[in-house]
Amino acid sequence: MDTRIIGRHVIHAAALFAAFPLLSPGARGADTLHSWNSGPTKFAVMQFVRDVTTEGGQDYLPPDERIAVFSHDGTLCPEVPAPVELAFLMDRIKALASRNPRWQSKEPFRSALSKNLKGLASAGTRGILELTAAVHSGMTPEEFEATVNGWIAKARNPRLNRLYSECGLLPMLELLDFLRSNGFRIYIVVRGDAAFLRSWAEKVYGVPPAHIIGSSVRTKYEVHKGVPELVRRPDFDMLEDGAGRPPAIYRVTGRRPIAAFGNSDGDLEMLRWTAAAEGRHLVLLVHHTNGGNEFAYDRKAMFGKLDSALDIARKSGWTIADMTKDWNRFFAKTGK
Amino acid sequence: MDTRIIGRHVIHAAALFAAFPLLSPGARGADTLHSWNSGPTKFAVMQFVRDVTTEGGQDYLPPDERIAVFSHDGTLCPEVPAPVELAFLMDRIKALASRNPRWQSKEPFRSALSKNLKGLASAGTRGILELTAAVHSGMTPEEFEATVNGWIAKARNPRLNRLYSECGLLPMLELLDFLRSNGFRIYIVVRGDAAFLRSWAEKVYGVPPAHIIGSSVRTKYEVHKGVPELVRRPDFDMLEDGAGRPPAIYRVTGRRPIAAFGNSDGDLEMLRWTAAAEGRHLVLLVHHTNGGNEFAYDRKAMFGKLDSALDIARKSGWTIADMTKDWNRFFAKTGK
Repeated sequence: MDTRIIGRHVIHAAALFAAFPLLSPGARGADTLHSWNSGPTKFAVMQFVRDVTTEGGQDYLPPDERIAVFSHDGTLCPEVPAPVELAFLMDRIKALASRNPRWQSKEPFRSALSKNLKGLASAGTRGILELTAAVHSGMTPEEFEATVNGWIAKARNPRLNRLYSECGLLPMLELLDFLRSNGFRIYIVVRGDAAFLRSWAEKVYGVPPAHIIGSSVRTKYEVHKGVPELVRRPDFDMLEDGAGRPPAIYRVTGRRPIAAFGNSDGDLEMLRWTAAAEGRHLVLLVHHTNGGNEFAYDRKAMFGKLDSALDIARKSGWTIADMTKDWNRFFAKTGK
Repeated sequence: MDTRIIGRHVIHAAALFAAFPLLSPGARGADTLHSWNSGPTKFAVMQFVRDVTTEGGQDYLPPDERIAVFSHDGTLCPEVPAPVELAFLMDRIKALASRNPRWQSKEPFRSALSKNLKGLASAGTRGILELTAAVHSGMTPEEFEATVNGWIAKARNPRLNRLYSECGLLPMLELLDFLRSNGFRIYIVVRGDAAFLRSWAEKVYGVPPAHIIGSSVRTKYEVHKGVPELVRRPDFDMLEDGAGRPPAIYRVTGRRPIAAFGNSDGDLEMLRWTAAAEGRHLVLLVHHTNGGNEFAYDRKAMFGKLDSALDIARKSGWTIADMTKDWNRFFAKTGK
């Protein structure tokens, strides 16, 4: 930085803070949230970041404690017509159906084969894991990853006609960058098998495999012909949804987050746990209100139902990002 | 760096590489392994690091893939007379015994109360977890952490008369720094409850809570009087010893490590799995051969038995750090 500019800052520090409270040195990259409209929501996010990053301030927290958790489907990307993992599983079940005639009469396979989304939604996280475990057992994690990568390279959200890998909600991608540039460690929480998102989250969200928190298909250490390897079993170890999320987050991060971002009732426990932290924290709910640019749904949604969490958010004064009011762009341009 | 020195490096690059192959730009901080004697073991470590960090080289790996896992007891610190977690548990059991008369006749509590190390050793990882779960349930993770911190601030290894927090083996602490300065991410693997080591590993080893991999006492999300919190239950979720280690490492890191450091048969699966990686990797076994400076034990040890792993290491050509041959200092000076 030019020393003359430093000099001006020192001289006019008080005036600058009053005029541009968000341009303080504590919140780096504050003007990169281009897709967010000016207003109380954007202000709340930026003020929070400034507060916890301003050294000497009463809310300052060292980078080690700046942990932010994001729900995946519906918070970082659309979940209409279905969460991306479910779209993947439906395609895999279809591809492997001829070898597994029993699936025709057995739930949740039957729903997956007939693309009965309502049936799949009611099967819940357990249903997703049953599909994953059945379809993707008997292989190494590396083989599973290769299958996922092959699929994600081509698969599109049918309602948006856009590659799933280009469906990240732009304001949220900007928010990830903003937090990262301010020393936050970002974790993404998923309902189903963490291994699915781990295969591609780094490319799309810049979040490494170790920072994806989710359920896990049982993986065993086995030695075949003298070669040790991990093999996925047709079963799962942990089901990390709802009330299972805070313990899973704690197990992975070793701390309580100071910022949590969700969009549905399934995120409620994670949000409440973060909101109960003693120090400065931010709890934000993404509200899908824009049917023109994305989708509009809340209390009666098949996936991502937002009902009691919306009431609690309003009552508790959590930050709510209303897509229509708070966002001006939804997706990045693509090459398609 | 002085430009004249850079100039000399450029001019004499070829000569420098021949004379000091380990001072290449790829292996930063190579001369900080002061407690390691020059010889094939130190050379193997440094050459490995140079190979995977030299851009353009055939073994180059980007920082994201530079994952190193260390066993804790016996690899990073002594485990004689007992692993540090067991010392903690014996003290806690003793302190709480009057409230739990049944412990007098129930294993592994009885062994813990009578300081019967042989009995505790035979109770294994499951025994350690039973003690942890019983003694430290009904409290939040934060309360547990406070108990551990209070203990570790004062507790000493009775044979070394040295605070446990100052028992890190100096050559291994130097190795952690060396790997870190070369872009590695370090994970520590423990037998018992990960939460125990998480409380103090950052201070002693520079390894953050999220990078401690271990078993876990079951932790539930509960709401008491409207306040959500995590509560430790008298039970455990996962027992991560032996063959459970590779899946646990994979679950936490999302990758197979390229470097693994152990000292006992309990580390065998982790070492073999790392050794089976396709690319360049390093597998190192610490052999406790120095009864004068530390302890000497292997095939018949109560804790940290090193028997079949030693044979396999020799047969497979893994790197073996023989404390007497390879190390010249064992512990850092303390203020005591």
